[in-house]
Amino acid sequence: MSKPTLYIVKIGGNVIDNPDKLRAFLSDFAQIKALKILVHGGGKIATEVASKLGVTTQMIDGRRITDQAMLDVVTMVYGGLVNKKIVAQLQSWGCNAIGLTGADAGLIQAVKRPVKTIDYGFVGDVTAVSNAGFQLFLENGLVPIVAPLTFENTNGTMLNTNADTMASAIAVALTSFFSVNLAYCFEKKGVLANPDDDNSVIATLTPENYDTFKANGVINKGMIPKLDNAFDALKSGVLEVTICHADELRTALENGQVGTRVVNGSVVLGR
Amino acid sequence: MSKPTLYIVKIGGNVIDNPDKLRAFLSDFAQIKALKILVHGGGKIATEVASKLGVTTQMIDGRRITDQAMLDVVTMVYGGLVNKKIVAQLQSWGCNAIGLTGADAGLIQAVKRPVKTIDYGFVGDVTAVSNAGFQLFLENGLVPIVAPLTFENTNGTMLNTNADTMASAIAVALTSFFSVNLAYCFEKKGVLANPDDDNSVIATLTPENYDTFKANGVINKGMIPKLDNAFDALKSGVLEVTICHADELRTALENGQVGTRVVNGSVVLGR
Repeated sequence: MSKPTLYIVKIGGNVIDNPDKLRAFLSDFAQIKALKILVHGGGKIATEVASKLGVTTQMIDGRRITDQAMLDVVTMVYGGLVNKKIVAQLQSWGCNAIGLTGADAGLIQAVKRPVKTIDYGFVGDVTAVSNAGFQLFLENGLVPIVAPLTFENTNGTMLNTNADTMASAIAVALTSFFSVNLAYCFEKKGVLANPDDDNSVIATLTPENYDTFKANGVINKGMIPKLDNAFDALKSGVLEVTICHADELRTALENGQVGTRVVNGSVVLGR
Repeated sequence: MSKPTLYIVKIGGNVIDNPDKLRAFLSDFAQIKALKILVHGGGKIATEVASKLGVTTQMIDGRRITDQAMLDVVTMVYGGLVNKKIVAQLQSWGCNAIGLTGADAGLIQAVKRPVKTIDYGFVGDVTAVSNAGFQLFLENGLVPIVAPLTFENTNGTMLNTNADTMASAIAVALTSFFSVNLAYCFEKKGVLANPDDDNSVIATLTPENYDTFKANGVINKGMIPKLDNAFDALKSGVLEVTICHADELRTALENGQVGTRVVNGSVVLGR
């Protein structure tokens, strides 16, 4: 196994919304020695900006409906404000960050999600990740900071895209060249067995106990797409997926004693 | 002269504000065969967005005063909305654009302008351009699309920065490795001898006739910083500076029969 190790870290919206927490998280991220990519969510600021601009926010099942006006807002807020603040902060600590959307260097192409029962508007389903683009940056000491935006190559439209899915898609694409570790960081200590008990972290999730937790309702709606992404990533060659608190990123990556480790059955035996 | 030719093109705000004109301009830009960089201005949309967000726009001598709230607005609008729309459009035409601010890859460092008589707020004066960063992109087929934003490395703050100055600073920095042609594109056919006559384009500006035009008031306030930048760039090794209408970019670059050519005296003799 001579592939270099690559960490792909996704940081969720709740941390983005809190400048102090974000700063602490970024400080930890900056200290990761291995190759790394950060994918960030949007946070509530897009909703606030939209509201002030008179653009109505419509959510269905936790997913934002993105009309043209909302697409402009998320392009501004995710691709501009949030992304560049992160980049400038990391740069000041000597981490050679480069802010990117899926459009930049044609990194992540998508198609506008087909309308079935719900028209999500300008929301992208990822179709292609440019390995060459990410490799160029990583091999030249740059740290990609990826905003949750993709683009449709046929017409040059930006598309609002789920950051968890983007992190997973990038991770899978880069398994050909790197030993990829994927970490989802958010405001909980991991996947909880009891939503009311922050310390009830499920240490290891396998396909088997995941099915049980879903069947008995312990793992809830919002967590399911994240975990489905995680298991898909593992099936496609990602080495390890960790779900942990933003405060515990480095401990989770370094010794695996905190957070939830998502593993395929076979990998469990080897641990 | 074995240095490869590099075109650095600056497109002004008035074109940014008009989607049809911008699209036509970008189509021309995409067709330039040589290595190229686009630096874009901001346009009026930042003022509109600011106004809707309740952020007051203060201008002194055509320069925006940038407080913290306005810095957020320009970071959103220039670095997000305007930049990513340009990138996605160019990508759809097969031009491998990458959107960048000065913070990304540490490309363009600046310092917050010292307060003399006027406090411009979070406005940057360029201090350093990373040749290595631009070279990496250009040598790998990427086309940098640069938003008018720099950053201060000591504290990780974004800074609002004049796009003309940025274009000139990038041009000068890259003369060590490229034969650099700099073009300022805007809504006029060039530098006008008579502001009321759009066809009174001054074909060639030399340091000598520039002094005369300034002395007799033909060249006015807004044009002076642009032309000072142009002459500075020539003194620092930039091969040629053209000031032309956005509609005439390719004609201006290809045969030099339109727009204003800014030259050092010695270069005039050689033409």
